Amino acid sequence: MKNIAVFTSGGDAPGMNACIRAVVRAGIYYGLNVYGIVRGYAGMISGDIRKLESHSVSNIIQRGGTILKSARCEEFKTKEGRAKAYEQIRKHEIDGLVAIGGNGTFTGAQIFYEEYGIPTVGAPGTIDNDLYGTDYTIGFDTAVNTALDAIDKIRDTADSHDRVFFIEVMGRDSGYIALRSGIGGGAELVMIPERPNSIERVIETLRSGKFNSKTSSIVIVAEGEQIGNANSVAHQVRQELSELDIRVTTLGHIQRGGSPTALDRIIASRMGVAAVEGLLEGKKNVMAGIINNEIIYTPFIDTITKKKPLLQDLLRMLPILRI
Amino acid sequence: MKNIAVFTSGGDAPGMNACIRAVVRAGIYYGLNVYGIVRGYAGMISGDIRKLESHSVSNIIQRGGTILKSARCEEFKTKEGRAKAYEQIRKHEIDGLVAIGGNGTFTGAQIFYEEYGIPTVGAPGTIDNDLYGTDYTIGFDTAVNTALDAIDKIRDTADSHDRVFFIEVMGRDSGYIALRSGIGGGAELVMIPERPNSIERVIETLRSGKFNSKTSSIVIVAEGEQIGNANSVAHQVRQELSELDIRVTTLGHIQRGGSPTALDRIIASRMGVAAVEGLLEGKKNVMAGIINNEIIYTPFIDTITKKKPLLQDLLRMLPILRI
Amino acid sequence: MKNIAVFTSGGDAPGMNACIRAVVRAGIYYGLNVYGIVRGYAGMISGDIRKLESHSVSNIIQRGGTILKSARCEEFKTKEGRAKAYEQIRKHEIDGLVAIGGNGTFTGAQIFYEEYGIPTVGAPGTIDNDLYGTDYTIGFDTAVNTALDAIDKIRDTADSHDRVFFIEVMGRDSGYIALRSGIGGGAELVMIPERPNSIERVIETLRSGKFNSKTSSIVIVAEGEQIGNANSVAHQVRQELSELDIRVTTLGHIQRGGSPTALDRIIASRMGVAAVEGLLEGKKNVMAGIINNEIIYTPFIDTITKKKPLLQDLLRMLPILRI
Amino acid sequence: MKNIAVFTSGGDAPGMNACIRAVVRAGIYYGLNVYGIVRGYAGMISGDIRKLESHSVSNIIQRGGTILKSARCEEFKTKEGRAKAYEQIRKHEIDGLVAIGGNGTFTGAQIFYEEYGIPTVGAPGTIDNDLYGTDYTIGFDTAVNTALDAIDKIRDTADSHDRVFFIEVMGRDSGYIALRSGIGGGAELVMIPERPNSIERVIETLRSGKFNSKTSSIVIVAEGEQIGNANSVAHQVRQELSELDIRVTTLGHIQRGGSPTALDRIIASRMGVAAVEGLLEGKKNVMAGIINNEIIYTPFIDTITKKKPLLQDLLRMLPILRI
Repeated sequence: MKNIAVFTSGGDAPGMNACIRAVVRAGIYYGLNVYGIVRGYAGMISGDIRKLESHSVSNIIQRGGTILKSARCEEFKTKEGRAKAYEQIRKHEIDGLVAIGGNGTFTGAQIFYEEYGIPTVGAPGTIDNDLYGTDYTIGFDTAVNTALDAIDKIRDTADSHDRVFFIEVMGRDSGYIALRSGIGGGAELVMIPERPNSIERVIETLRSGKFNSKTSSIVIVAEGEQIGNANSVAHQVRQELSELDIRVTTLGHIQRGGSPTALDRIIASRMGVAAVEGLLEGKKNVMAGIINNEIIYTPFIDTITKKKPLLQDLLRMLPILRI
Repeated sequence: MKNIAVFTSGGDAPGMNACIRAVVRAGIYYGLNVYGIVRGYAGMISGDIRKLESHSVSNIIQRGGTILKSARCEEFKTKEGRAKAYEQIRKHEIDGLVAIGGNGTFTGAQIFYEEYGIPTVGAPGTIDNDLYGTDYTIGFDTAVNTALDAIDKIRDTADSHDRVFFIEVMGRDSGYIALRSGIGGGAELVMIPERPNSIERVIETLRSGKFNSKTSSIVIVAEGEQIGNANSVAHQVRQELSELDIRVTTLGHIQRGGSPTALDRIIASRMGVAAVEGLLEGKKNVMAGIINNEIIYTPFIDTITKKKPLLQDLLRMLPILRI
Repeated sequence: MKNIAVFTSGGDAPGMNACIRAVVRAGIYYGLNVYGIVRGYAGMISGDIRKLESHSVSNIIQRGGTILKSARCEEFKTKEGRAKAYEQIRKHEIDGLVAIGGNGTFTGAQIFYEEYGIPTVGAPGTIDNDLYGTDYTIGFDTAVNTALDAIDKIRDTADSHDRVFFIEVMGRDSGYIALRSGIGGGAELVMIPERPNSIERVIETLRSGKFNSKTSSIVIVAEGEQIGNANSVAHQVRQELSELDIRVTTLGHIQRGGSPTALDRIIASRMGVAAVEGLLEGKKNVMAGIINNEIIYTPFIDTITKKKPLLQDLLRMLPILRI
Repeated sequence: MKNIAVFTSGGDAPGMNACIRAVVRAGIYYGLNVYGIVRGYAGMISGDIRKLESHSVSNIIQRGGTILKSARCEEFKTKEGRAKAYEQIRKHEIDGLVAIGGNGTFTGAQIFYEEYGIPTVGAPGTIDNDLYGTDYTIGFDTAVNTALDAIDKIRDTADSHDRVFFIEVMGRDSGYIALRSGIGGGAELVMIPERPNSIERVIETLRSGKFNSKTSSIVIVAEGEQIGNANSVAHQVRQELSELDIRVTTLGHIQRGGSPTALDRIIASRMGVAAVEGLLEGKKNVMAGIINNEIIYTPFIDTITKKKPLLQDLLRMLPILRI
């Protein structure tokens, strides 16, 4: 192996730059040339590929977003698109790829390998933490801390006005951000897609909090919550508990940005180094994750098809901590 | 004057606690007893009034929200409500009031003085900065910095995905937060209620930015913008510029909370001291504001009826800085 | 078991309040009365013990420091001191203790059990992360992120002036904070007590960085570094590399304070709940730690005598990432 | 005027990048070519000068430090050095300069004008706020907020352990940072170079705080304090008040870095635009400052020779607020 390329794909996540830096430096450390592909598969098709040196990734470890940019690419889902991409890969004599992204990204990489034999090792870059094969995904800890910081601010005003706040956090299919920011934020309730909720239970909990003379409450609602988003849940609760002063806030895209936390920079760096080392050892179609503090390579097929379990220990704490 | 009371009223704002602390300590410094009234006029009516000592306000200068809480109070708008409030004020032998809030608060205080002769000096506590008689209101600088921090985070993701973001900030009748966070955040456009906008101008600006090969853009929309909120403006722009990837984020209540900035703590402290000194000098129905770094007492009637001008110097910079 | 008490002891750490909250609420959840002992063993001796209710710990999860305060206590090391402490414990009919602190705290608790039969379950509260029996101690993640934030700020000015900065972080016997903040901060070198360093190696690394046209560099030095503190190391390097513009910053006590990160709030909450549940199950002289995401109770004797290994994976990344 | 150049000189300050951006964009807006000189006068002499476009300054408004770097330059103090510099200026056909820095920078610019007729308009870039001719210098508000954030963190631990902390902040000849961060941080005492202090007064104040049963205290010491730095003052106090648990922290270079606050970005932008407009109006040897919210051009000779007064209103609040 002589030349490798790195790219980011799917939704951006804080820590992607730390991972890019680690890939570039590990590549150089092991004697490889490292290329950066701009805008993921789109740049692979259009040939937006540039050589990266050690100094190209200086002073980026602390930056949110991704210097290589990210984009959706429908064209890569077609045979023609992938043929063009291979053309560019061949032109730059690239022998291996590091893909920083999620399951959509890994699916593309797997097909690309089957067709053209270019091996890819992945690194899990998504704030949602919903990838099987790793305890933490890159960006998750930062997103949780950003949500928490917002919850802390909202608690100030909730408390000053004796209000109930419904706060919607990211996580379309996954309650990870909701659960951790909810526990960390001292929320009364956390509503997540993985666990059936009923409006009745929500109402009951808020009513008993009121009864216990709590003057303010926070309810965290994950984007993908099945009985509705934060606005809709709040609306339903208002019908029953008109004595509560209820407000809604949707945190939105602030959760995607910002300087990564220490944890995100560290796991991103470890995964970046491990991805390069994996390629050098001949690995392909695997994701470099961290389980119990150790690097584990999990086949793409597992990250794509298997469901990561929620931490039961957090779930069971909710009724204890809100007492 | 022997006994004074302090209360917060209207929307809470970061720095209110620093102001309460300054009122309490200045009162004690000048030999007064200082009472705190909980939940503004509502607590005045219900008699939720407690004596505050120096240590009651220890370690609160850095906290968001208000330890005295705030609430709307319809009852104080009635003659009967104010009679009950006066009963409580008389019972505690309170000779003067410090009201931290906005124009609604000051209106109530003025009527209360006319009916019962209890003098009030106000301090401007509102994140919107829309009070005549002061360069800065308590909480404004913090709200702007909170909005800015969110804009910085969103720029990370906007830039990574080449997107246009419409970000809605607080300010129902006022573009102060929008203007300062927009200039500070490097926004292409800032849409504020004080200045007529047209969708055409917005579209034109974004189109020419695209033409100048800007890959991402930020548009700040104040809550009270006349041609619609951020969602509605974004919707209209999407019709015309379908090639842009447009997203919307509404920052919401995070702008009300958080630890106050240095500037907010300092002006809140100055205004709190000045409010007590104003009462001692026999002032009434005035707000202690800061203009050109000096304490100025402005009659409530002026803060209520006069309109504060926007800083033209900021407005005129927008087309220069987005070039 | 009917009555338990919780206290914090040793150096304070962010997240201690989240742990206190969890102990109080878990205690109440399981039908116990929960007392708080102020200033650790000192308050146990003097009888500064108060009943805590659910609302006593409202709105503290986000606060640094410890609402129960902490203090050194020489008297508890004497038989007479412990006799007085037992007097107070008996007076309040306390059946079990939760001690949040480090090895000094646990040693005292073990002796107290041997003499008076009062069981203690510990929770690891120290920013240094040097306790055997847990992957993370309470406060460690916050301290690392605080150090990292400072390193990021210093990198701005280092880069603007092409300087080399030696930054001293906390960790008298332990390089955990140094290693994680160094990796996260993109440091060239990390000097820790666990691994022998030589001035020659430091000079060599900085010289080769200069050679590779790096214009600025960061060196992290742990407090307990054997060849000297940051000032002394910098002094020695200056003798050899007079062409470098070298500065020194000692981060100091800022690393102990601040609002805890999500991770610290979550592990502190889990450990607090686990400590109460441990007591109820009859456990004693053990610390509730988290290893591989699961609660593990480790005997005090092991936390005190065994040495926690450094994560080799981080150490070996340093030469790769600085290339 | 057709070509202008901008540079940063002296100690770096957060907001310098926002000012550079404003200079570049205002220059382009008014039809000029704008050059950036790297490392201040050193780059002027060596010819490290590059053309800047609008996109060269994209996405830098939020960054600390200066993308143009800064350096001391002894050579420019010599006639020969300035002759070389002029050679480069002539070669690039530069007609005017914008210098972002302090009095050292402005002195150089004035001499350069007298010798070669190249006009300079300055912008006040220094965290110390000690420049006559402007209410705020670029970087000052950020430095104060950074110091304040550190003080807040230290207060957590001071309070948990009932300690007295002496915190040294920047300001060699100026107490501005000390005074504002001290008021904002709720300090008992602020020691600044502009006002004579005595150890006796410090001891007296701390003793009476102890008497008033304050359990923890913060004393802010400006770098340039005449009776000694924080360590030395603390040492003297310890002799007299051995019952206090006294600690010292020196904040150091973290005060120079970090993302600029809203205020710093806004004044930096205004001053940058004003500097370019000043050049276009034929101004020279003046600094574009902001006094009472308006742009004022002050002759270099005044910024250099006149002393800016401290805000008396802040000084007189200290004994009131610590009661």
